[in-house]
Amino acid sequence: MIISLLTDYGYDDEFVGVCHAVIRSIRPGVPIVDVTHGIARHDVREGAIVLRNSMPYLPVGVHVAVVDPQVGTERRGVAIRCADDRVLVGPDNGLLSLAWERAGGAVEAVDISRSPFRLEPVSATFHGRDLFAPVGARLVAGAELLEAGDPLNVGDLTVLELPTASVDSGVASGHAILIDRYGNVSLNLGHAELLELGVTMGSQVRVVAGGRDREARVVQTFADVAEGELLLYEDAWSSLALAINRGDASTELGIGVDDEVRISPIQ
Amino acid sequence: MIISLLTDYGYDDEFVGVCHAVIRSIRPGVPIVDVTHGIARHDVREGAIVLRNSMPYLPVGVHVAVVDPQVGTERRGVAIRCADDRVLVGPDNGLLSLAWERAGGAVEAVDISRSPFRLEPVSATFHGRDLFAPVGARLVAGAELLEAGDPLNVGDLTVLELPTASVDSGVASGHAILIDRYGNVSLNLGHAELLELGVTMGSQVRVVAGGRDREARVVQTFADVAEGELLLYEDAWSSLALAINRGDASTELGIGVDDEVRISPIQ
Amino acid sequence: MIISLLTDYGYDDEFVGVCHAVIRSIRPGVPIVDVTHGIARHDVREGAIVLRNSMPYLPVGVHVAVVDPQVGTERRGVAIRCADDRVLVGPDNGLLSLAWERAGGAVEAVDISRSPFRLEPVSATFHGRDLFAPVGARLVAGAELLEAGDPLNVGDLTVLELPTASVDSGVASGHAILIDRYGNVSLNLGHAELLELGVTMGSQVRVVAGGRDREARVVQTFADVAEGELLLYEDAWSSLALAINRGDASTELGIGVDDEVRISPIQ
Repeated sequence: MIISLLTDYGYDDEFVGVCHAVIRSIRPGVPIVDVTHGIARHDVREGAIVLRNSMPYLPVGVHVAVVDPQVGTERRGVAIRCADDRVLVGPDNGLLSLAWERAGGAVEAVDISRSPFRLEPVSATFHGRDLFAPVGARLVAGAELLEAGDPLNVGDLTVLELPTASVDSGVASGHAILIDRYGNVSLNLGHAELLELGVTMGSQVRVVAGGRDREARVVQTFADVAEGELLLYEDAWSSLALAINRGDASTELGIGVDDEVRISPIQ
Repeated sequence: MIISLLTDYGYDDEFVGVCHAVIRSIRPGVPIVDVTHGIARHDVREGAIVLRNSMPYLPVGVHVAVVDPQVGTERRGVAIRCADDRVLVGPDNGLLSLAWERAGGAVEAVDISRSPFRLEPVSATFHGRDLFAPVGARLVAGAELLEAGDPLNVGDLTVLELPTASVDSGVASGHAILIDRYGNVSLNLGHAELLELGVTMGSQVRVVAGGRDREARVVQTFADVAEGELLLYEDAWSSLALAINRGDASTELGIGVDDEVRISPIQ
Repeated sequence: MIISLLTDYGYDDEFVGVCHAVIRSIRPGVPIVDVTHGIARHDVREGAIVLRNSMPYLPVGVHVAVVDPQVGTERRGVAIRCADDRVLVGPDNGLLSLAWERAGGAVEAVDISRSPFRLEPVSATFHGRDLFAPVGARLVAGAELLEAGDPLNVGDLTVLELPTASVDSGVASGHAILIDRYGNVSLNLGHAELLELGVTMGSQVRVVAGGRDREARVVQTFADVAEGELLLYEDAWSSLALAINRGDASTELGIGVDDEVRISPIQ
């Protein structure tokens, strides 16, 4: 079994290293997968989406995630067993909810806020070190979920709400859910919606977003359109995404996270 | 046994990766803990404090640290056994001294400058690769300290001098010893000094520093004060620290490393 | 056997973490050496040189490299066995060619573009995850090279052309091949050329480059010259390099990658 970590701790400080130290104190040789520590500070949704996207590629194990703007307040820490036997550990703020959905659903949960596996004294500001890493390490070392905390109804777990998508009268309406460092805009639309629109590879679509009305070509990859042209493609996580070849679609189209994007075929 | 690394090499270049390569050439499967490689370039004191702070969370092992502005000159390389059986490896410039103090003291030391474990030819500029990583790896693989170099009197090791703190006439006088990337200012004061002042959680204190005179509230965490307000709290390493909720205390108070900070209760 | 990774993925995103996840899904406990993920985006030559330089320090294993501006187009993916038993995996764009040269030459190669070890469906934009990581992991797990793809003539592999160097009439003519983040300029010249010029440690040389004519001292390390002075030294990878002590030689001398640099002794 492996243990994976995803946080917004960044790489400048010793936060990640100390979490590794805590894990290796409990389970010296366990394989640790650092999914990423580059989540934008306190961006719970980005963390949730990246964790969900990574989930199918991670071996079954214990998956610790910490994006935790409410650290030190009354928010719960939780450990959750999924239908596919993965265990998720982190704050109960929605960060884990897309991952357990992808993993077949949450089947058992415990509140670890006062876990016997905590490192005492628990600091007010660094629960990655004092709570989530040691609980994760003890679970990957073989502890039972019920030893880690107090039973919790899975129905009481915090769920992250993502905007919804629909197809109506030949128009797919979705939202920008993630914008990466190159300005590529991932939508909560996928292959199914394209099929429903009757749109095929190589055709042109109309994109209405950010008060603008543009045409995009439906292609496989950036280099399939000329420099500066807008494309609609399936990104590496199977989401439809808007990009400009060698440009920044988010800026040029004026699209931010949560903005509505409407796509329709051009006959 | 694990081996840990702490350096100022950063992540842009292959320096850290090549040190890992050297270690894995000698001991392929050893767990490596990267405490951090984000120490500010050539900042020996920051390295020493971060290493000391991390020490209690690291499993007993071989702890290699490289912040080495004098690389290639006559400064010594050393390996040191501590009272708690940890072994420290690095340049003899004070970087290791806070760590061995935390580990119960240095009990045995060797000068590794001409260690038989060096990689030949030793470059003038990359002793992490050519000296410290291979010596650390051989020690974690079971070599005796005396095989790594020439015996050295532990009293001759370079010790880092930190500013001192005192409590006198109801005023605690300390110094800023570390300022993090958010402008939070760690002091060489702790819980003991607060107790001596008779200051309790929730009370107000007077903070004199950088030619300014301010009030701060003594609390557990940032969110316990309003945005923009100054707080005094125990940070995750048990040092008293000054912060401004969602602000930058170092800039706003004009405090730099080594500046004096005086704290007194407000009746 | 270890597996190593070198990419231009950076550390902000989950790309590296997901490659680790894929490797650990196939071979959970294999030691992974991250040589670096800080290669400048799409800079195949920088990747090739850093991989070559690191090669002698890496244990024999499977070495995956991904700097791949043509991902998703018709460029081949390849796996190559070297004379010293190392296996290289990556795009066939020259990235691997300096490494196999350093490893005694390529002795066997396969085209892995349609490898049975690919993860299906293969995305158009993330072959590190879908092609190179799984092929590398299967090879380090013991698969035969011929199981990974279709046989390929090693003579058909893409070779990176580096500029050439020569010594003529007491002048060594080379080129800048790598400029690091401090402005230090590595040349495709080494100890042999210095010997041929009859230049010894401590002497002065004339450096003609970027339309400028300067003097440099031949020394071992930065601190051997005064601040602001130009030095010629053997860098940690045994290349001759130009630097300015505490300055930026690339900027001050106006030298870019591929520019010619001529060095001659001053009698």
